Amino acid sequence: MLRHTVKRQFNLFSRAKPVREAFLCAHNGVSAAVRISTMNRSNVLNYSTKIPPRLTAESYPNLQRLSEFKKLSSDDLTFFKSILSDSEILQATADEDLAVFNEDWMRKYKGQSKLVLRPKTVNQISQILKYCNDNRLAVVPQGGNTGLVGGSIPVFDEIVLSLTQLNKIRSFDSVSGILKCDAGVILENADSFLAENGYIFPMDLGAKGSCHVGGIVATNAGGLRLLRYGSLHGTVLGLEVVLPDGKILNSMDALRKDNTGYDLKQLFIGSEGTIGVITGVSILAPPRPKAVNVGFLGVGSYEAVQEVFVQAKQELSEILSAFEFMDLKSQTLAKEHLKGVSHPLEDEYPFYVLIETSGSNKEHDDAKLEAFLEKAMENGSVLDGVVAQDETELRNLWEWRESIPESSQAGGGVYKYDVSLPLKELYSLVDAANERLNEKGLSSTSDPTKPVISAIGYGHVGDGNLHLNVAVRAYSKEVEKVLEPFVYEFVSSKHGSISAEHGLGFQKKNYIGYSKNEQEIAMIKELKNLYDPNAILNPYKYV
Amino acid sequence: MLRHTVKRQFNLFSRAKPVREAFLCAHNGVSAAVRISTMNRSNVLNYSTKIPPRLTAESYPNLQRLSEFKKLSSDDLTFFKSILSDSEILQATADEDLAVFNEDWMRKYKGQSKLVLRPKTVNQISQILKYCNDNRLAVVPQGGNTGLVGGSIPVFDEIVLSLTQLNKIRSFDSVSGILKCDAGVILENADSFLAENGYIFPMDLGAKGSCHVGGIVATNAGGLRLLRYGSLHGTVLGLEVVLPDGKILNSMDALRKDNTGYDLKQLFIGSEGTIGVITGVSILAPPRPKAVNVGFLGVGSYEAVQEVFVQAKQELSEILSAFEFMDLKSQTLAKEHLKGVSHPLEDEYPFYVLIETSGSNKEHDDAKLEAFLEKAMENGSVLDGVVAQDETELRNLWEWRESIPESSQAGGGVYKYDVSLPLKELYSLVDAANERLNEKGLSSTSDPTKPVISAIGYGHVGDGNLHLNVAVRAYSKEVEKVLEPFVYEFVSSKHGSISAEHGLGFQKKNYIGYSKNEQEIAMIKELKNLYDPNAILNPYKYV
Repeated sequence: MLRHTVKRQFNLFSRAKPVREAFLCAHNGVSAAVRISTMNRSNVLNYSTKIPPRLTAESYPNLQRLSEFKKLSSDDLTFFKSILSDSEILQATADEDLAVFNEDWMRKYKGQSKLVLRPKTVNQISQILKYCNDNRLAVVPQGGNTGLVGGSIPVFDEIVLSLTQLNKIRSFDSVSGILKCDAGVILENADSFLAENGYIFPMDLGAKGSCHVGGIVATNAGGLRLLRYGSLHGTVLGLEVVLPDGKILNSMDALRKDNTGYDLKQLFIGSEGTIGVITGVSILAPPRPKAVNVGFLGVGSYEAVQEVFVQAKQELSEILSAFEFMDLKSQTLAKEHLKGVSHPLEDEYPFYVLIETSGSNKEHDDAKLEAFLEKAMENGSVLDGVVAQDETELRNLWEWRESIPESSQAGGGVYKYDVSLPLKELYSLVDAANERLNEKGLSSTSDPTKPVISAIGYGHVGDGNLHLNVAVRAYSKEVEKVLEPFVYEFVSSKHGSISAEHGLGFQKKNYIGYSKNEQEIAMIKELKNLYDPNAILNPYKYV
Repeated sequence: MLRHTVKRQFNLFSRAKPVREAFLCAHNGVSAAVRISTMNRSNVLNYSTKIPPRLTAESYPNLQRLSEFKKLSSDDLTFFKSILSDSEILQATADEDLAVFNEDWMRKYKGQSKLVLRPKTVNQISQILKYCNDNRLAVVPQGGNTGLVGGSIPVFDEIVLSLTQLNKIRSFDSVSGILKCDAGVILENADSFLAENGYIFPMDLGAKGSCHVGGIVATNAGGLRLLRYGSLHGTVLGLEVVLPDGKILNSMDALRKDNTGYDLKQLFIGSEGTIGVITGVSILAPPRPKAVNVGFLGVGSYEAVQEVFVQAKQELSEILSAFEFMDLKSQTLAKEHLKGVSHPLEDEYPFYVLIETSGSNKEHDDAKLEAFLEKAMENGSVLDGVVAQDETELRNLWEWRESIPESSQAGGGVYKYDVSLPLKELYSLVDAANERLNEKGLSSTSDPTKPVISAIGYGHVGDGNLHLNVAVRAYSKEVEKVLEPFVYEFVSSKHGSISAEHGLGFQKKNYIGYSKNEQEIAMIKELKNLYDPNAILNPYKYV
């Protein structure tokens, strides 16, 4: 029965153009353009929107520049020129407002930095930080600048310390699979390098064409391979970090086991540049999978989604590399957005699941996936399903998951929440949000006078990570008040996290109390104070 | 050709009795006996040796009790009795010297504690620590007491805080596989509980019948499943920790993703009870593999061992769960020890490799292992090999790896080193040690007047973890001087770790300088001082 479905569906489906490719290219194109323009110091930028951001200082008038920070003087410039070459210093001029470094990719924030330093050595970074610490000059470390919470963007006149030019692969051990590289190596470059050696970088994300290896470690990015390869806390074996006082913590020894003293590097994974600047990363790369398969399934309820997840873990076990779910509303929006492209499944279902397997033997993986699907359809937890027959179909199936963010924005705008919740309650937030919006009479898929189109839910079931997107026709204070702090309070009541992947940055640092208790926050503050007593690193963002 | 070898070998081999089983039972028996005797407060103990240890204070006469610690008074006892029941307090008496809590399993160390507290609640632990901190009473947290470096044993009169009675499973989510339990749950109990639910504890070790879940986290134990499931820094999702001042850090929320603030729990993983007492653990359990296979291979050189490892990673990839190597000398000792048992391979080879696979489909795993072995024999990296045909054969093959520690001790004694080294140089330490012992005329396998029989090497190639055992006819200061600090200096020169799995504890804390640089040691001391300013937790063991 499944085989038949697969064939039937793909007869329809294979007519579709491979939309994901186009989308991905567009997305990577943006990032690449930013990167190139940085190199050329030109102003040709491509952001997620054409509307330029307001200055963060204007958007948040209650936020004041901290007076303890010194303003940049000619003496400071003289010092920086004594340790850096001309090409390593960018200054704001009448023609150059350093927008590339002052604005984030989402164009939500805009800083006012007048100075960007782009050192090529760790020693230079050490000298820069020591000088800034001694002179109370505030500093924002910046990697590929692809963050979503304004963590890598100055707020006022902080100096931008860009890691872009610290970008060399240091070494690779093809027996152990251990890669050592500078923090400024672009993720895609690291992964391509590993691919040539039969290995894979143990994480992946949409911004791979621009984001830095150091940046993903500093933000503890989750991305697409977490289910299979685990978190960076497990795969990062060593770090080199320059502390705010200029001291260099060299813990780059690449050992899988070392039980001598506290594991210091762990503190810097996910610290978002607030207690040190990561300059080098040593990471364990797994063998590159030889076969990748994707299935797209229709499921009757969120309870059934969980059943399918348990069955997938049991049957697919070591080859299961992604388990993504989407609700019907997200697919309805995607259908409207991807006009003319046939949906993989003919009929509608309350939920959809995308399963990916990655293994070393295609024949075995195919057999496992087929057996799993047959079982799941027989016992009724899966109602319909298709399996990609080639690379193009595989990309097309992924597209129905990956186009959701764009689709939910297409009606006018979108409020986005990236939360972790216990698996059993992952979807309850979407129901609660829709209920609340309906109660207040704010939501309708058809009535154009209502501000909200719909609240939709999708995400990484394997990681307990839900993306709640509230698609709107226009942004409004009324909708915002209905959603916030409601969403944060809901997540907090279920002991979830208000930022699963994106970090706190500027956007969420005031909301940490919804995810962390008093004792945790007190200990976080203690550590900030221990490592950065003058608080020069990434100000206005730490707790 | 391989099939033939397999058959021939197993015709010989299957006559052997399953020795590993007997060994494991003996080992577990020891631990179980200790555990039971603890419960009965009897003195019937089984240790690794019958020779009772000297008091640590006598073995290390230069070590003085720190005078800032208060001596136990009747007021203190009155307080403890006010918060604990009788069964939760053990006091030394004329008949009861608390040996179970004062001696380690190896009987290398013996403390002089007069008081053991065995609370049943986290709140009690908080009250105990607050009191001890306020009154400068030194405390040693103790789990299953199976450590190998004297980390869980008092040195002088420290109070023993035993986690034995804090031993409940708190919850298990069968969809996500997340287990929450008290720190005092015995590893084997946790794993059995998970097995009933189709899951597996993501680490395993020989002492599983006695060691505590909290203890393995506090020591960041590596064990047997690291190659497959990664380190505890990746699999532990949350911790509950009581700090020295009695404050409770509750970070038990079990989310795979949470990027809000520094990942505090990481600091306590591997901190060996020196900055806080772990009372609860939340951990991600993977699905239990349905099929386990083992192959035992003969290899011509250490270079070939590395080639086989790379091939195994490529071909077996996601199902490779162990890759252990042994040198010829280790197998020669094992043969002498396991008299009458036929070795799996008829001929002798310079190196042996044990490969284990764990997967979800036996047929697929068999096919992968067979294909890998055929290829490896064809290209000459593997010279001979056998594959277990059933559970008994599987255990027998493991026995030739697991009996090495016992075998190397059987000639009189053994100096043991547990080190991490870069994979390419993993074996060079064994060569260097043998060369040095021969140069000094101390070593001979046949001449009974020489103190050393042989230096042998074996270990977890997948983890870069070498066990160097120097088998001796008798312990001697002369041999010791030839080995130390030579071994530590050698490891340090290769940027390895002097303690891969075992931790620092009492035994190695003075040697940390061989594995960590000045900056790292300074930061470790800073953290100790931050969390335990009165230094009451596990004194004489922190750096």
